[in-house]
Amino acid sequence: MDDTARLHDVLREPPDIDAAALRLAGVVLRTPLIGSEVLDALVGARVLLKAEVLQRTGSFKFRGAYNSLRLMSGSRGGVVAFSSGNHAHGVADAARLLQMPAVVVIPRDAPATKIHKVERLGAEIVFYDRARDDRELMAATIAAERHATVLPSYDAAPVIAGQGTVGLEAAHQAAEAGLRLDLMIVPAGGGGLLAGVALALARHSPATRVYSAEPVGLDNHARSLAVGRRMRNAVDAHSICDALLAPLPGRLTFSLSQPLLAGGVVATDQEVCNAMAFAFEHLKLVVEPGGAIALAALLAGRIEARNRVIGIVLSGGNVDEATFHECLARAQPWWRH
Amino acid sequence: MDDTARLHDVLREPPDIDAAALRLAGVVLRTPLIGSEVLDALVGARVLLKAEVLQRTGSFKFRGAYNSLRLMSGSRGGVVAFSSGNHAHGVADAARLLQMPAVVVIPRDAPATKIHKVERLGAEIVFYDRARDDRELMAATIAAERHATVLPSYDAAPVIAGQGTVGLEAAHQAAEAGLRLDLMIVPAGGGGLLAGVALALARHSPATRVYSAEPVGLDNHARSLAVGRRMRNAVDAHSICDALLAPLPGRLTFSLSQPLLAGGVVATDQEVCNAMAFAFEHLKLVVEPGGAIALAALLAGRIEARNRVIGIVLSGGNVDEATFHECLARAQPWWRH
Repeated sequence: MDDTARLHDVLREPPDIDAAALRLAGVVLRTPLIGSEVLDALVGARVLLKAEVLQRTGSFKFRGAYNSLRLMSGSRGGVVAFSSGNHAHGVADAARLLQMPAVVVIPRDAPATKIHKVERLGAEIVFYDRARDDRELMAATIAAERHATVLPSYDAAPVIAGQGTVGLEAAHQAAEAGLRLDLMIVPAGGGGLLAGVALALARHSPATRVYSAEPVGLDNHARSLAVGRRMRNAVDAHSICDALLAPLPGRLTFSLSQPLLAGGVVATDQEVCNAMAFAFEHLKLVVEPGGAIALAALLAGRIEARNRVIGIVLSGGNVDEATFHECLARAQPWWRH
Repeated sequence: MDDTARLHDVLREPPDIDAAALRLAGVVLRTPLIGSEVLDALVGARVLLKAEVLQRTGSFKFRGAYNSLRLMSGSRGGVVAFSSGNHAHGVADAARLLQMPAVVVIPRDAPATKIHKVERLGAEIVFYDRARDDRELMAATIAAERHATVLPSYDAAPVIAGQGTVGLEAAHQAAEAGLRLDLMIVPAGGGGLLAGVALALARHSPATRVYSAEPVGLDNHARSLAVGRRMRNAVDAHSICDALLAPLPGRLTFSLSQPLLAGGVVATDQEVCNAMAFAFEHLKLVVEPGGAIALAALLAGRIEARNRVIGIVLSGGNVDEATFHECLARAQPWWRH
């Protein structure tokens, strides 16, 4: 099936987040929606933080992976993923729970801790060389040999539906607290979480305006939204947000989210470090750089917040101690003064 | 009222944890009881971690402070506390919410971040000199001058009742997950949290065996339990667990907890660092040294865990970045191998 055909399929049958929520019930952690009076006072708003750092495998990625694998559970050959990060861990954990074979195609120079985590979750690892090998081709070849299915990290309807349960839960949790989200700010790389949350809120909290949050220079969503078509990041753009390095918004994800989004906000690496330090000091949560981007944009005053109820997704907490320490050492904790 | 009279009063009218829970409802955060499959696999048990690091002011201390201040809300003169740590923050926050004046007597050489936190919470600060001044006498003098009440950090029935809501919630949350706690391991300094949790579980989960967790050398509860009367720590005993430095168990706390406890476990500073690193890596929680002592004892194999359902209180997360980094750098993450 080529891309255009797949896109038409998805637009005909959009990701079903309510069905995904039923599939995930009792397996996924309903992560807490955390408030912070210190943060509220700093930004003059009521802020609710969806703590996906506490999710299985330390990020929201488990949701999309598990939903997808449940839907392909007829596939005896199992699943193949290419990722060295949170998607790999989500897929490995979901496959283990569903007793499906899983192969993760991972760069040979990936950090040892990330490789160990995939191993511990029971997935088979196939290494590739970043300079020589085409990881997508490798994944496709392995999948063909084993009658397995390649699971993309964001551009697939069941993945988007699973990630959307973050938005569904946040809407319900806000309502349980007697609140309605005015804004929701969502970290975006390829845009799977963003599209899922936008779809969920369009249905369950239609007054909520949804924004993407991205690193400066890797603001592919913000720029794509501004011009109305998918824009690519500069090839030499870089950021400490290693989870948000997609070259451009996904085709499916952007088709789905574009009509629903209110806009995009950005944050610098410095602002991301500040947000990680704030989370350490006041939320007692470990947040990885990419997972802190929405909080970073809010704390940096990059969105009109005053008197609003603002949802923030803290999307992941997988960061090694050296990087964490480096970020906190670099932070400028202006809120202490 | 002298100590003996107060003790008799308390034993006649023990801390009422159910009443405290009603007072705290809607103010205190019902902190999540978090599971970790990685931890379960490591210790061969089902572990449930009560994440009081997420509590208001970053530790369980807010519970006892708020319950006590609600009970003294006729006291126009307000409250006086002597502490440079979690108790000070709990009292300051509770007083602010209840619009009561609060004075915190704090050592002049306390870390600047701790002083700022008390200031930000709106309490008045009176400094003392560790070498020259008697802080208890200073607190009593200030209280007398202002018609205020001194709130002890652990040895008072309303404080114990408030802290006990940690145990009450944990028992309910375990039951909601279809589980019953076989063991509960509770960090102990003066023993307010320990006594409260033991009382709560005796009523709401009587089959649960409750253990104190303390640093090696500051194992005043373990030794007191062994001999049946309150034992003092050596004056030169030290530990990185700065929240657990009480000289001996409280008189009231020990009277209440002694008949209910199954025993005491200890952990070394090295084991505490390991537990903090485990929490960083796998739970994505910032836990201070004293807050990690129960997890440290469990991870170090200091209690028979196999096939049990084990509750652990992660009692606080107030640690500065330098100390946090030092502890994580010192950790030996044996679970990675």
